[in-house]
Amino acid sequence: MKKKTSSLLIAGILLGATASPVLANNEAMLNLLQVLRDQGTITAENYRLLANAAKSDSEAIEKVANKVKAIEKNTATVSLKGGHLKFKSHDSAFSAQVGGRIMTDYAFIDDDRNMDGDGSEMRRARVFLKGKIFNDWAYKAQFDFAEDSLTTKDLYIAYKGFKPVTLKLGNHKVANGLEESTSSKYITFMERSTINDLFAVGRKNGLSIATGGSNWTFMTALHMDGVGNSNADQDEDYGYGARLTFAPLSGKTKTLHLGVSAHRQEYESTPLVGGTYGQQRFRARPEIHTINTRPYDTRIDGVDSADTFGLESAVVFGPFSVQAEYYSKGVSTTTDDVDFDGWYLYGSYFLTGESRNYKAKKGSFGRVKPTSIVGKGGHGAWEVALRYSDIDLYDTGAAINTMGEKGDITTIGLNWYATPTIRFMANYVMANVEYPGTTNPDDDIKAFQLRGQIDF
Amino acid sequence: MKKKTSSLLIAGILLGATASPVLANNEAMLNLLQVLRDQGTITAENYRLLANAAKSDSEAIEKVANKVKAIEKNTATVSLKGGHLKFKSHDSAFSAQVGGRIMTDYAFIDDDRNMDGDGSEMRRARVFLKGKIFNDWAYKAQFDFAEDSLTTKDLYIAYKGFKPVTLKLGNHKVANGLEESTSSKYITFMERSTINDLFAVGRKNGLSIATGGSNWTFMTALHMDGVGNSNADQDEDYGYGARLTFAPLSGKTKTLHLGVSAHRQEYESTPLVGGTYGQQRFRARPEIHTINTRPYDTRIDGVDSADTFGLESAVVFGPFSVQAEYYSKGVSTTTDDVDFDGWYLYGSYFLTGESRNYKAKKGSFGRVKPTSIVGKGGHGAWEVALRYSDIDLYDTGAAINTMGEKGDITTIGLNWYATPTIRFMANYVMANVEYPGTTNPDDDIKAFQLRGQIDF
Amino acid sequence: MKKKTSSLLIAGILLGATASPVLANNEAMLNLLQVLRDQGTITAENYRLLANAAKSDSEAIEKVANKVKAIEKNTATVSLKGGHLKFKSHDSAFSAQVGGRIMTDYAFIDDDRNMDGDGSEMRRARVFLKGKIFNDWAYKAQFDFAEDSLTTKDLYIAYKGFKPVTLKLGNHKVANGLEESTSSKYITFMERSTINDLFAVGRKNGLSIATGGSNWTFMTALHMDGVGNSNADQDEDYGYGARLTFAPLSGKTKTLHLGVSAHRQEYESTPLVGGTYGQQRFRARPEIHTINTRPYDTRIDGVDSADTFGLESAVVFGPFSVQAEYYSKGVSTTTDDVDFDGWYLYGSYFLTGESRNYKAKKGSFGRVKPTSIVGKGGHGAWEVALRYSDIDLYDTGAAINTMGEKGDITTIGLNWYATPTIRFMANYVMANVEYPGTTNPDDDIKAFQLRGQIDF
Repeated sequence: MKKKTSSLLIAGILLGATASPVLANNEAMLNLLQVLRDQGTITAENYRLLANAAKSDSEAIEKVANKVKAIEKNTATVSLKGGHLKFKSHDSAFSAQVGGRIMTDYAFIDDDRNMDGDGSEMRRARVFLKGKIFNDWAYKAQFDFAEDSLTTKDLYIAYKGFKPVTLKLGNHKVANGLEESTSSKYITFMERSTINDLFAVGRKNGLSIATGGSNWTFMTALHMDGVGNSNADQDEDYGYGARLTFAPLSGKTKTLHLGVSAHRQEYESTPLVGGTYGQQRFRARPEIHTINTRPYDTRIDGVDSADTFGLESAVVFGPFSVQAEYYSKGVSTTTDDVDFDGWYLYGSYFLTGESRNYKAKKGSFGRVKPTSIVGKGGHGAWEVALRYSDIDLYDTGAAINTMGEKGDITTIGLNWYATPTIRFMANYVMANVEYPGTTNPDDDIKAFQLRGQIDF
Repeated sequence: MKKKTSSLLIAGILLGATASPVLANNEAMLNLLQVLRDQGTITAENYRLLANAAKSDSEAIEKVANKVKAIEKNTATVSLKGGHLKFKSHDSAFSAQVGGRIMTDYAFIDDDRNMDGDGSEMRRARVFLKGKIFNDWAYKAQFDFAEDSLTTKDLYIAYKGFKPVTLKLGNHKVANGLEESTSSKYITFMERSTINDLFAVGRKNGLSIATGGSNWTFMTALHMDGVGNSNADQDEDYGYGARLTFAPLSGKTKTLHLGVSAHRQEYESTPLVGGTYGQQRFRARPEIHTINTRPYDTRIDGVDSADTFGLESAVVFGPFSVQAEYYSKGVSTTTDDVDFDGWYLYGSYFLTGESRNYKAKKGSFGRVKPTSIVGKGGHGAWEVALRYSDIDLYDTGAAINTMGEKGDITTIGLNWYATPTIRFMANYVMANVEYPGTTNPDDDIKAFQLRGQIDF
Repeated sequence: MKKKTSSLLIAGILLGATASPVLANNEAMLNLLQVLRDQGTITAENYRLLANAAKSDSEAIEKVANKVKAIEKNTATVSLKGGHLKFKSHDSAFSAQVGGRIMTDYAFIDDDRNMDGDGSEMRRARVFLKGKIFNDWAYKAQFDFAEDSLTTKDLYIAYKGFKPVTLKLGNHKVANGLEESTSSKYITFMERSTINDLFAVGRKNGLSIATGGSNWTFMTALHMDGVGNSNADQDEDYGYGARLTFAPLSGKTKTLHLGVSAHRQEYESTPLVGGTYGQQRFRARPEIHTINTRPYDTRIDGVDSADTFGLESAVVFGPFSVQAEYYSKGVSTTTDDVDFDGWYLYGSYFLTGESRNYKAKKGSFGRVKPTSIVGKGGHGAWEVALRYSDIDLYDTGAAINTMGEKGDITTIGLNWYATPTIRFMANYVMANVEYPGTTNPDDDIKAFQLRGQIDF
C-alpha cells in the first residue's frame, strides 16, 4: 500500500506501532523491504514475494497473540494458592470459591457424675460455595454435615455497593463478641469459651449493616430466628444488636483490640399445650464438645426479652497474646428480672515466634501463617495457651431454676500449625460445676482432647 | 538449506506458510537474507550468522506458540459469566458446572384461626453439580439443604445420542404443567400457585423420553415414587404421564404458549396396622410457605389410582404477559369416584420494559435479563404482577373427607431483578378458605412476604 | 547500541539468543539493519527509524510471551478428562477435585414372608471434595445424600511425607477385605456380598498407617466408632486391625491377588435402662438393598469383644476373573464364646474382551475402561457374572439369639459399561433364608434389579 518510504512515513508507522503492537509486528521487515526495493537492492518481483511472506509471518504471530487474548478473556483464573480453590473472571467483576473444613476430635473424659466417657466426634465437616457477582454483590452458602447432621451456617446475599458499608441478608453472624466473630478455623482452643456459648448471639437470619475503617468496625443487625428454629405456629422470636470494635494498635505483631457489643432478644412465645409459658433455657458444655451433658444450665420461665452486653479486649505483642471477654445477660420475665454473667481470660505464646493474626478491618483474628511449613521442609508453628473461664448463672426469683449454677474451667492448649491450613490441637480441660442443694454439689470434669483440622 | 532464491522458491515458501504458520515465521527474514547474500549485499559469513540468529528468533516464537497450544489443550475453559461457574473441555465433549441457589424469606402473617405468625424461612438452599460426558451423556445432582433439611432434587443420568430425543433416568421433573416446569428461580410470584402444589406431579424417580422442535415439546415418563418416599414393606406406587406444548408464537417479546398434560398415578398401598386402607391426602399451603398450615386439605380413603389432567396457556406481549392453568383430578377409590379441580390466572408487567423470557424448546419460562444491572451502574428490572387462584376440593361420597374445602387466593407481587441472578420479591397474599360445617366456616389469611434470591 | 557488526559480535548475540529467547527476538533484524547501515545500503536516518520499529515489534512479541508465562503461573490447570473435574497448581504441589456419584436402582421383588415389594431407591448420591496441600498433605470430604439421608463417608486428613507410608486421620475405610476395599463404583455386582456386609469393618474414625510396594500393601489402624455412632453417655467402642495383600501376578490382564485381614472390636457398652447389657446385632440384607428386611440376623447379649478374620483371593486371566473371600467372627460374651462364618465365590467374563482392572498398589480393583465408548461411536463393554454366597450365623449358647440363621444367595449379573464412568447393571438374585423352629422355616427371596450409575 505504501509507495513512498520517506523517513516521515516510517516514523508514522513507528508511532502507530504502540497503538496496535501486534499488528505492527514485521512492520520493520516490510519497511526495510520497501527501502531496499526503492533503492534497487531487491527487485520489485522479489519485493512483492518477500512482502507477502513477511505479512504471512506477521499473521502467524498475530494468531498466537489473539489466542492468548482469547484464553485470557474466556478463561477465568483458577488459583490453588494455599490449597484454596478460587476462580476469578478476567475483569475481577466475578469470583467464586469452593471449599470447606474438617475437624476430627478424640476425647478422653473423666466425669463420674454424668457418665460421659471417651469418644470421637466429627466436630465440623463443612462445605461452602461463595462468590462475587457484578463487583458489588456477593453470596455465601455454607453447610455443616458433621456427625451425619445437616446444619446451615452462612447462607446470605451481600451488597457492597455503598462503600465502605456492607449489607447482608440471610443467615450469618450478627453483632457477636470477639471469640464468636473469630472463625472456628482460627480460635486458639479447641472450643470457644463456655461464656461465649452461653451469651453470644451466633448466626441469625436477618439483615445487617456493617462498616468500618482501617482500625475500627461497626455492625448492626435486625434478625428473626436462625435457620431451622422457626416457630411456625406463632410469631417467630426476633432481635437486634450492634457491635463496635476499635484497635488503637493494629500492626502485624503489635495489636490492641477493644470491643463492645449489645443485643436485645425479643421472645414471642405463646403458651404451649403441656408446656411452660415462655420458658427459655441457657446452657452450655464445659469447653468439651464430645460429651452430651451441658452442665451449666438454667431455665427461666415467662421470658419476654433478654439483653446481652459484652466487652472485649485483646493484646498481641509479638509471639505473646492475651484475650479477655466479659458478658452479662439481663432477662425480663413476667415476674422477675434475672441477671447473670461470666468472663474468660487467656494467654497464648508461639514457641516458634509467629504472632496471632489480628484483622483490624474485621475486628477478629484470622489465619496463623507458620513461618516454616511441613511439606516444604519445615516444622510448622507451635503455640501454647492457657485459658480460665468463670461462669455464674446464679440468681434468685420465682422465674429461675438453675441446675449447674456456677463453675470455672481451666484449659491448657498446645497447637501445632503444620501448614497455614492444617492444625493439630491438644487441650487438657479441668471444669468445675456447682449444683448447690443436690447430693453431689460439686462435679469435676477432666478431659484430654485431640483435634486434627484442615480447611480448604 | 535453500541455496537458490528464485521467485518460485520464495513463492513456494509463501504457500507453505499457510500450512505451518508458526514454523514459517521469520521465513521472510531468511528469504531476504538469501536474496541479499546471492546479490552480494551481505557476505556469506554474515549470512550464516544472521540466518542462525533468525532461526533462533523463530524458535523463540514457536516456543510461545507451543505453550499456548499446550494451555489450550491441557486446561479446560473456566467461565464465570453472570457468576455461573462453568467448565468445558477443549473439544467441548465434556463440561461441568457447580452452582446453587439461595432464597431467604420473611413473612408477616395474619391468620387467627391457625395461629400462624410472622417468621423467616430459608425457602431454598440448593447446591448442584452437573456435567456432560463424551458429548452424548449428561448428569445432574442437585440437593436442597434449606432449613437444615436434606431434600434430593435432580439426580439423574441423561442420554442425548438419539437427537432430538433426550432420555433421563433417575429423579427429575416428569410431565408437569407450565408453572411446575418453570424453575423456582424464574417463577413470577414467591410461590407457585396452590393449584400447582395440589395437582402437579413434581419430581419422580423414573425414565422419561423427551423430544421437541423449535416451538414444541413432548415428554413422556414412567416412574416409581420420588426419592425418600419408598414404601419398602410393599410395592411402591408408580405412575406415567405425558405433556405436549406448542408455541404458535415464540419470539423474544411476543409469545403464545399452549400446553396439555395428563398423568395417571397408581397406588399400591396395602392395609397398614392402625392406618386406613390406601388413604391419600391432597393438601396445600395458601401461596404462603412460611406457615405450617396447609388449609386446602382433603383425605380420600381406599384410593386405587388418580388421573390428573392439565391445560396451560401463556401470552407474552412485550412487557405484558398473562398466564393461566387449569387442572382437574379424578380419584378412583374402592367405593367412589371423586373429582376436584382448580385454576389460576395471572398477569405481569415490566415497568422497565423487559419481557418474560419464554423458552419454546423447553415449554417453560427462563431467566429474566434486566437491561440495566445494579453493579454496572444500572437500576435493575421492575415487574408488577397480580394472580388469582381458585381451589375447589369439594366432592361428595363416603371416601372423601375434606377439611379446607374451597377457597380463592389473590396475590399482588412486586419483583426487582437487581441483576440476572439476584432478585428481591414482595408479595401480598389474601387467601380465603371455606371450612363448611365448622364453627369458623370462613378463614381469611393475609400475608406480606419478602424474599431475597440469588442463583449461582 | 552496537556500533560494530563484526561476525564475532553477531555470533555473541546468537549465543545470547538461547539464554533469553524472547528478548532475542528480532535481534536478527537489528543485526541485519546494522550490517546494511555499515555497508551503506541504508542511510543512518533510515537505520534509526527501522531499528526503533524493529524494537517495537520485538516488544510486542515479548508482551505475548509474558502474558503466556503469566497465564501458566497464575492459573491452575483444569482437567475434565473422562468427566472428572480436577485442578492442579503449576508446580503440582497443590491439587483439588470436585466430584460425586449417582446410583439409581429399580427392583422387582418376590418375598411373601417379609412383604417386601417392588421399589426404586437412590442407592448412592455422593458429592466429594478432595485435594493435595504442599505436596505431602491430602484431604477428602465425601458425603452421601441418597434417599434424603445424610451419611458421612470419607472425611480425613492424610500425610504422605514418610514415603511410602501414608497416615490417615479421620473417617475412612480401615483394614477391610477385598470387596469392601473396592469402591462401590467398581464392584462387579449391584451389592457387595452379604458376607461382606456382615463381617467387614467399613469406615471408622481413627488413625491408619498404610504402606506397600509395587505388588503388596499393608495397612493397620486404631479407631473409635464411625461418624454418627458416638455413645456419648459412655465410653465409645473402639477397635484395631490390619490387612496384608500380595499379588504374585499383577499384570494388566493377568492377576493373582492374595490377602488376609484381622480385626478386633472392643465393645464398651454399659447397661442401658430398659435395654439388654451389651447386646450386639449382626444382620444383613440378601444382596438386595431396596428391601427393608435384613433377614440374616443374630443378636448376641453381653458382648465384650469380637474378632474378625478374613481371607481374600482373586484371579484375573484376560476377560475372565474369579474372586473369593472367607470371613469368620468370634464373639466373646460374658457367658459364651460364639462363632460364625461365611464365604462367597464369583466369576466374571467380559464378552467384549476387557479385563477387570486390578490395582496392586491398592490391593483392590479399579475402574473398568471399555475399549469402545458410547458417545465416541462405540458400544461399551459387556460383562456377565455369577456369584454364590454362603451365610452361617448358627451357633449355640445362652448369649446368641438368631433369627435368619443360615442361607445362600445366587446372583446372576449383567453389566454394560457404556463409558468408563457410566454403567448399567442388571442382577437377578435368588436368596434363601432358614428360620429354624418358626412356622415358615424356609424363605425364598427373588429379585430382579436394575441400576443406572455414573461417577464424576
